[in-house]
Amino acid sequence: MATVKTKKTTKSKKASQIPVRYRVIGTRPIRHDGVDKVTGRAQYGADVQLAGLLHGGILRSPHAHARIRSIDTGKAAALPGVKAVITSADIGPVTDRVVDLGEGATRLQHLRDNILASGKALYQGHAVAAVAATSPHIAQEALRLIEVDYEVLPPVLDLREAMEAGAPLLHEDLHTDDLGTKSMQPSNIAKHLRFEKGDLEKGFKKADQIFEREFLTSMVHQGYIEPHNATAFWNADGRLAIWCSTQGGFTVRQQAAAILDLPVSSIKVIPMEIGGGFGGKIHVYLEPVAALLSKKSGKPVKLVMDRAEVFEATGPTSGSHIQVKIGARKDGRIVAAQAQLAYEAGAFPGSLVVCGMMCIFAPYDLEHQRIDGYDVLVTKPKTAPYRAPGATNAAFASETVLDEIAEWAGIDPLEIRRLNGAKEGTRRADGLVYPRIGFLETLGAARKHPHASAPLEGPNRGRGVASGFWFNVGLKSSVTAAVNSDGTVSLTEGTPDIGGTRTSVAMQLAEVLGLAAADVKPQVVDTDSVGYNDVTGGSRVTFATGLAAIEAARDIERQMAERAARLWGVPASKVKAAGGVYRHATDSKKKITFKELAARLDETGGPVVGKASLDTSASAGGGFGTHIVDVEVDPETGKVQILRYTAVQDVGKAIHPSYVEGQLQGGVAQGAGWALNEEYFYDDQGRLANASFLDYRMPTALDLPMIDTVLVEVPNPGHPFGVRGVGEVPIVPPPAALANAIYRAAGVRLRQLPMNPGRVLEAILTRDGKPPSKA
Amino acid sequence: MATVKTKKTTKSKKASQIPVRYRVIGTRPIRHDGVDKVTGRAQYGADVQLAGLLHGGILRSPHAHARIRSIDTGKAAALPGVKAVITSADIGPVTDRVVDLGEGATRLQHLRDNILASGKALYQGHAVAAVAATSPHIAQEALRLIEVDYEVLPPVLDLREAMEAGAPLLHEDLHTDDLGTKSMQPSNIAKHLRFEKGDLEKGFKKADQIFEREFLTSMVHQGYIEPHNATAFWNADGRLAIWCSTQGGFTVRQQAAAILDLPVSSIKVIPMEIGGGFGGKIHVYLEPVAALLSKKSGKPVKLVMDRAEVFEATGPTSGSHIQVKIGARKDGRIVAAQAQLAYEAGAFPGSLVVCGMMCIFAPYDLEHQRIDGYDVLVTKPKTAPYRAPGATNAAFASETVLDEIAEWAGIDPLEIRRLNGAKEGTRRADGLVYPRIGFLETLGAARKHPHASAPLEGPNRGRGVASGFWFNVGLKSSVTAAVNSDGTVSLTEGTPDIGGTRTSVAMQLAEVLGLAAADVKPQVVDTDSVGYNDVTGGSRVTFATGLAAIEAARDIERQMAERAARLWGVPASKVKAAGGVYRHATDSKKKITFKELAARLDETGGPVVGKASLDTSASAGGGFGTHIVDVEVDPETGKVQILRYTAVQDVGKAIHPSYVEGQLQGGVAQGAGWALNEEYFYDDQGRLANASFLDYRMPTALDLPMIDTVLVEVPNPGHPFGVRGVGEVPIVPPPAALANAIYRAAGVRLRQLPMNPGRVLEAILTRDGKPPSKA
Repeated sequence: MATVKTKKTTKSKKASQIPVRYRVIGTRPIRHDGVDKVTGRAQYGADVQLAGLLHGGILRSPHAHARIRSIDTGKAAALPGVKAVITSADIGPVTDRVVDLGEGATRLQHLRDNILASGKALYQGHAVAAVAATSPHIAQEALRLIEVDYEVLPPVLDLREAMEAGAPLLHEDLHTDDLGTKSMQPSNIAKHLRFEKGDLEKGFKKADQIFEREFLTSMVHQGYIEPHNATAFWNADGRLAIWCSTQGGFTVRQQAAAILDLPVSSIKVIPMEIGGGFGGKIHVYLEPVAALLSKKSGKPVKLVMDRAEVFEATGPTSGSHIQVKIGARKDGRIVAAQAQLAYEAGAFPGSLVVCGMMCIFAPYDLEHQRIDGYDVLVTKPKTAPYRAPGATNAAFASETVLDEIAEWAGIDPLEIRRLNGAKEGTRRADGLVYPRIGFLETLGAARKHPHASAPLEGPNRGRGVASGFWFNVGLKSSVTAAVNSDGTVSLTEGTPDIGGTRTSVAMQLAEVLGLAAADVKPQVVDTDSVGYNDVTGGSRVTFATGLAAIEAARDIERQMAERAARLWGVPASKVKAAGGVYRHATDSKKKITFKELAARLDETGGPVVGKASLDTSASAGGGFGTHIVDVEVDPETGKVQILRYTAVQDVGKAIHPSYVEGQLQGGVAQGAGWALNEEYFYDDQGRLANASFLDYRMPTALDLPMIDTVLVEVPNPGHPFGVRGVGEVPIVPPPAALANAIYRAAGVRLRQLPMNPGRVLEAILTRDGKPPSKA
Repeated sequence: MATVKTKKTTKSKKASQIPVRYRVIGTRPIRHDGVDKVTGRAQYGADVQLAGLLHGGILRSPHAHARIRSIDTGKAAALPGVKAVITSADIGPVTDRVVDLGEGATRLQHLRDNILASGKALYQGHAVAAVAATSPHIAQEALRLIEVDYEVLPPVLDLREAMEAGAPLLHEDLHTDDLGTKSMQPSNIAKHLRFEKGDLEKGFKKADQIFEREFLTSMVHQGYIEPHNATAFWNADGRLAIWCSTQGGFTVRQQAAAILDLPVSSIKVIPMEIGGGFGGKIHVYLEPVAALLSKKSGKPVKLVMDRAEVFEATGPTSGSHIQVKIGARKDGRIVAAQAQLAYEAGAFPGSLVVCGMMCIFAPYDLEHQRIDGYDVLVTKPKTAPYRAPGATNAAFASETVLDEIAEWAGIDPLEIRRLNGAKEGTRRADGLVYPRIGFLETLGAARKHPHASAPLEGPNRGRGVASGFWFNVGLKSSVTAAVNSDGTVSLTEGTPDIGGTRTSVAMQLAEVLGLAAADVKPQVVDTDSVGYNDVTGGSRVTFATGLAAIEAARDIERQMAERAARLWGVPASKVKAAGGVYRHATDSKKKITFKELAARLDETGGPVVGKASLDTSASAGGGFGTHIVDVEVDPETGKVQILRYTAVQDVGKAIHPSYVEGQLQGGVAQGAGWALNEEYFYDDQGRLANASFLDYRMPTALDLPMIDTVLVEVPNPGHPFGVRGVGEVPIVPPPAALANAIYRAAGVRLRQLPMNPGRVLEAILTRDGKPPSKA
């Protein structure tokens, strides 16, 4: 790991209050939840035990597309031990409206129908009924007794075929929202969006060469370790408690309230520890079902998915079909760029194609652009966000074309990126003008890294380079912080801790108050116990909940200064606070530390509590990464071995460098899996053929080298410490970087993911990088 | 129930902001925790289940007083299933200092030695060792294998004998703190205190008659339904979690931290639902023991007392010996009053004799007074607060003497109290000058009540009257409140809800914000999740946590007004908020309700959270009660039957009248049990002979009539709604009122509690009300 610091050019007024030499920020304290995690004491959703707990199970459609003529639950309900059986009919009708999911939004009717199919099953694994019984075994037995009469319909599996007029329709009443206009005919295309900047034709006219390429990617899954789970208890007073594994207690509360037609405050969501999410634990799947089973049975009900259910019925990210057309001059300058991105939404609208559109050309300062996006229905599970959702697919397309252009122009791949690179003031196709960003700094750091110039020893080896962008989000965070008499601070947060954010947020509070990280006691609490918090997603928590912690710390600092003033009998304005020491402005003998003052709260007015509730959306700062990878391609088998990997990223300011490095390494690992092995593999009936970790091959430690990381620190002007989100950028470049490396190693340009041995071998044998017309 | 309202004469500036006609205050909404309680879903300490939970047991001394020569735990530790055995040696040495208990304070060494005896066992039931095992049965078996070598010492059971020079000493190193001076010789008298006002001799010279009487009361127990329990988990990272039944999570945290020599913030106390406390669940008993067992075993450990342990080793209130000397004029004016109160501390110093001293003459405006108090050690369990601690004993003495004086002077008992009654401006013996109080109003309401003039039909019947006082405490409370998008507010408190305070506090927040009580979602949380809160005790929660809720509501109201201003594009100063409606100061068309505004937080800046942390000690208002009781005394058996009971009390302002009535009724029931039946009955070896609910006879519904209540509302000027504590006053008058009634019915003045059939019969037979010289 290396850290590259750049001069801080923040415009924030408040930043001057923060010491420039940090005492806590940038160090690597032990994480607050570390012991609980390594000793197995941390409580996950599957650990929830309640008196009289029932165990539930979900019956899922064996068909990718089928009309449900009828469901007979009689035999199941009659099985001894079965306490409740429900179907879609048990959810009341919903008033259709848009529900905000924190990351993305969806129509309530669709959210509801994904929970339990009404009318039609739209993918294999789509839930059609559920039971609760006194044991998981009885529940499973009961599921087999439910009789569903299906009228099987043709599946819609290929994105391009789905878009054709005359394709079987998933939703007969769905008309395309085509740049704001409703289409006449119903369609599987839910939405068509466009970003435009400059004059595309004019731009292309300036080109010496135009590169037009087509790309395919397959659905891939986030692959978190912990399956979805939910335990619900619908109390006799109408209050509903839900324990679950989620990236956001408040979004579960909001979605469950919408589906169940309850006021949000009648639901309390207790977010348990989370064994990974990556975007896939934002939508509700089990929570409203467990709630309805509890309502019907009067008992608490627990539902836990098995791995096949996780694959078949939750969160893959969109497979995609992307066409890119880029015009370049001989000197490597891009003069025009066009892209058309069609993303699989799965069975209900709402792919994050818009994110792909925002990211595809985001690292570059391009005068003339047009980007079209299509949200397309297929009979596969409803897609969910997955780490920089949409951006990886997009970068696979744009960054490999850029590599071709570099080769054509005879320019170094890092140099062509620098030449066209975006900087402060660059306007993106979607209209956003960059504040201070660090893309060029990542290119510079990559160039300086020994990896960039290390010789490639041996045959069939190649080095690839690619960059990537994620905009990062801000959204809303609330924290409360209470001073303890021993000089520590209890910190209450509402954003589930996935990547160490208890600590990274606590460190920011500690920095302001002059405490050690261990002096702050962070905890993630339920939705009744803290102000509103958006999801842990979009790489926002260390940034946004961190901002809230800083503001709460300032609130505390102000009150502590008043206490010091009271002790000294002077006006509060006479007390200056800095780094945990409170000094009299003019009398140098009068000073007191935070810890000393904390012990004297009782005599100066009682307890001190600080809080902050913020909407931080305006100040989130985007992040850029540049990756270098060396591969060796086995020309006999097509297997790609990653030899060396270096991820350079502008992280703003690394609060806890170990976690930032971990984010980069984890992102690369997932990106490499996506690039080389992972895919949703369907048979022609739309049945998922690889719904297990044996058949859905994610990379293990054996598949990857140690991933080197370089943290470039270009402070985000929207945060006093300069924090940028770091969790998503690192998954964006790997497929493109690997494709570029494979080309250098084997001479073939792969334009379809995964670049698995079969596909690489076929490309080598045919010397033809074009994707087959059908997957 | 009747409510008497008096004109509000508050001086609080803020009070004018509160509507005079309340919409929520004074109504009787369903309690927020009602369904959980009646369906058995509420989680008490005994319900706590954790993975790998061990069950503990405590070995207790069979002797009232014994030196512990040695403890051999070898056999117990060797028993299969036993995971830890501890004795006092497992608690490290403590640096002796005073530990604040919220209600009262104690020396750390004594607190520690009460947890596990070191050196000496000082009462039968004193804990000497503890085990943790895989089942409660194995734990009990292991206890039997622990061998303790005791040197039995003479017990010290009689308060008056304990005070004599030459009495066996409980603590050989304890010297009396005699009005601030240490005594030369060690003694069982821990402390001698004095309050003095005026010139006693001068006062007595004005008397036409001097009444000198002597009283004895026995230890009685709070008798809560739920036994003490504690589950602790000492994590490998040094953090300790404690689940328990307590009146204050923060005092458990503080005491456990002191005993275990940990910083307070390393302990998280999760206060479970509490099945009664009445002052007896403030001291820790099991918590540090469970913690040490957990530390030693590495597993969570649960300890639950049985009823005998509760009686033998926890919280009785002091037995007492009280001498009263009152001088009166023929017209009924009291000219001088003297009292000497000796209270049993139990095995360690710290009876609340000072509270008895504060209360004994508190209802009266007396020029010349002297009150002496003695805190006396006896070989009985360490006493704990019990509802108006010390005041009931004291009032039993003063209020029965007053009854004698009324009879002697030929004045109605209510009238003699009015004649001498305290009012705003009266200075008490301890120096406090009353703000607005409502004692005279209770006398007026009692006089007007039909009970006061109803004929007593039948022989052996009599009517008694007595008054009582409790000063009520304020102390520190913190709350946090978050606005939900559905227009409700989640309210986070840290004061365990014993008497319905979730609702009474929520109602105050609702009143300020113009919401319904049900729109506020209150919850009591752990010590990590809210600012510091003192115990639920001293009748402070509805007052003090209520004040915090009001301030948090104002904090929210201010922020909501800013949001309305933002919506209208006007400065916040232009928005006027009242009763949940936000109006433009000059444009009458612009108005928005709290609920409408709550739905628009996202577009106006994000979530809104309010908070308050207060030290309310200065503004708590004392309360007075006047009780009327009719009894029938069976001259053949001495049994006293309560025929009718009316409790009149100045409650300031009844937030939720049903709960206030419940407090009055509960207090009377406990006072009646104390008066007529309850006592700690020791044999001459100091062994408690009635440590069960069969033998320790508390009144049941069959023993009591419906208790009528009259709520007199003289607002406390220290609270915007006028709230006074109400929970303690009603236990103060019953023994005196009953003694006075018994005298009118049977012609005998009883001066020893309990006035059980044997004692009443003896008095009738001897026509001599003097207490026997020994109990």
